[in-house]
Amino acid sequence: MKQIDLENLPDLAVGATFLGTGGGGDPYIGRLMAEAAIARFGPVRLMDVDDVPDDGLVVPAAMMGAPTIMVEKIPNGREMQIAVSSLQQLLQKPVVSLMTIEAGGINSMIPLAVAAEMGLPVIDGDSMGRAFPELQMTSLHLAGIRATPMVLVDEKGNTVMIDAIDNLWTERLARTTTVAVGGASIIALYPMTGRDAKRAMVRGTITKALELGRLLRADHLSVAEKDRRLQAEHGALKLFNGKVVDVERRSGDGFVRGTVSCVGLGDDQDHVFRIEFQNENLLAMRDGQVVATVPDLISVLDQETLMPITTEGLCYGQRVTVYAMPCDPVWRSVEGLNTVGPGYFGYDLTYVPLPGTGSNESRRTTHEVSHGD
Amino acid sequence: MKQIDLENLPDLAVGATFLGTGGGGDPYIGRLMAEAAIARFGPVRLMDVDDVPDDGLVVPAAMMGAPTIMVEKIPNGREMQIAVSSLQQLLQKPVVSLMTIEAGGINSMIPLAVAAEMGLPVIDGDSMGRAFPELQMTSLHLAGIRATPMVLVDEKGNTVMIDAIDNLWTERLARTTTVAVGGASIIALYPMTGRDAKRAMVRGTITKALELGRLLRADHLSVAEKDRRLQAEHGALKLFNGKVVDVERRSGDGFVRGTVSCVGLGDDQDHVFRIEFQNENLLAMRDGQVVATVPDLISVLDQETLMPITTEGLCYGQRVTVYAMPCDPVWRSVEGLNTVGPGYFGYDLTYVPLPGTGSNESRRTTHEVSHGD
Repeated sequence: MKQIDLENLPDLAVGATFLGTGGGGDPYIGRLMAEAAIARFGPVRLMDVDDVPDDGLVVPAAMMGAPTIMVEKIPNGREMQIAVSSLQQLLQKPVVSLMTIEAGGINSMIPLAVAAEMGLPVIDGDSMGRAFPELQMTSLHLAGIRATPMVLVDEKGNTVMIDAIDNLWTERLARTTTVAVGGASIIALYPMTGRDAKRAMVRGTITKALELGRLLRADHLSVAEKDRRLQAEHGALKLFNGKVVDVERRSGDGFVRGTVSCVGLGDDQDHVFRIEFQNENLLAMRDGQVVATVPDLISVLDQETLMPITTEGLCYGQRVTVYAMPCDPVWRSVEGLNTVGPGYFGYDLTYVPLPGTGSNESRRTTHEVSHGD
Repeated sequence: MKQIDLENLPDLAVGATFLGTGGGGDPYIGRLMAEAAIARFGPVRLMDVDDVPDDGLVVPAAMMGAPTIMVEKIPNGREMQIAVSSLQQLLQKPVVSLMTIEAGGINSMIPLAVAAEMGLPVIDGDSMGRAFPELQMTSLHLAGIRATPMVLVDEKGNTVMIDAIDNLWTERLARTTTVAVGGASIIALYPMTGRDAKRAMVRGTITKALELGRLLRADHLSVAEKDRRLQAEHGALKLFNGKVVDVERRSGDGFVRGTVSCVGLGDDQDHVFRIEFQNENLLAMRDGQVVATVPDLISVLDQETLMPITTEGLCYGQRVTVYAMPCDPVWRSVEGLNTVGPGYFGYDLTYVPLPGTGSNESRRTTHEVSHGD
């Protein structure tokens, strides 16, 4: 039986942060919460979605808000259980399995803390295969699953239940409420049946994060060897080696938006590199040419340790290596690109899949909502 | 048995708009909705709060938002019933009586429409004895009654349930949600027992509004006679006769704030007059001297028809008469003034009761939470 325990939790935290592409929150706080809960209540069972009963209630839970705020506005630890329990009570049905909404430092960790505490399994997968900044940016949304009823809880004890007419309204209402409670909140949303989870979720994300994290954290491997395997085994593409020379950030509407600029080092000497982000990295440009965009993954790693750096952790002087990785095929459909493509984020660009990732992608297509590319 | 029917509904609309002190929304739309519902389902029974069972569920319902927006963002007619029904379902208890949260054009009318449709009575009273711009500005709040759980509904079909840690958080969360749905919403809140209603509500507001409206609308009475009776029978105080020469408004945070300036006519020739408002009229100044402030009532009437003019209806050139009227004694307590006194609205002023209204007030003190002055 697969499980998340104190031993593999650090792998998951690192791998999920890589998949979080700069967003999904700082892994540190989330990992501490998950560690404490697992130490007290025991490991969390990792469930294959095919083992979830068709009519069982599956609930994804997450932290919502700007990562920069999440770092300082620490959860009190009870919010997510309150959120999940409120949703259970509202639906008059017990939750059979929790789910992570996205891969990301904090959002892969917090559901584990609650799962441990509530004695519930977590499904191996998520709804993005990465992290995205808005609530409707999920494979569940593409499959026609409603995000509401949802419950939003803050650390003070305020609870808000939203039942919106569509998932864009859910995002809007939850975002303004999150801003009103201070910029970060805990949410339980997209309540769905096991049947829907099977057809609509992105499968295997947690296993993938565990493998990525194990590779990145392996003490016995050199950076060069890790780099080789990242590219060979995980379809990653090295985009740039350089030094951060400027980070510009602005927050205020519930997101942190900004730009990070780098100058090249080593083989990339005399080149410049820029990443634009909205919680997550959205766009990578080398010498002014776009080399990767959402929905493909863009991850910034520390050059020496290969530890992923979230957008709120970026700062002047860091030596970084930037990787891209193909997104889940669900995002390369027309509807997927309308929902999370460069155009949605305001860039007048046509999405071009990462070079050489077409065949790689189709091999990785496993779930029914996949549309291929 | 007292009731609101098609005959006395126009009196109530006019009287409540007077008590609304410029706020509480335009009476026109609300009156049309109430008229249509009463025509279809019959009159609404006006209930004395003492006849409500002690453990019966009482629910006030209202429209929330900026009056200028309410005029254009017309309810679809089902929101309030959805709000009340949702609250019933949440509390697993049937509503025995509806209540108006405030006296005001729209907020005295809409609950009648729902009451007619749901076959429920409305209690003769409200929670302000006038209108105020924020949700915690109620006699219920002063009596320690929680505003939540509350339900907020918009005309599109979005439903938000709020369970806040206190009534100021309720105001904040409901306000941001109201802004997010377009600036106006329908709310059901302060669910309470008949026992609490008896001790905490402002009694007789609807009867008072009916009497005021009957007087103001009386065809057989001259303006001079109406003026005399307003002062003699209702404790009103004439503040100014003049012409509106400027109205300045700004909205955006869920309120409409502004200033109306007048120059005197007749006896008030050569004098100037200014009113500051936030949805409701807050402050009246004659030649720069403060002559009335919240929580006392300040109402602007058309000089010829004596019809009350709401703040969103004010415009250049109107000939107006401004009256003040003493507030319910509950607002003259220390806690009352902390909640709705001039200081709360940002004016560095000590509240001074309207001249000669002390004795008048104590005579009108009827309910238990009254603290006198």
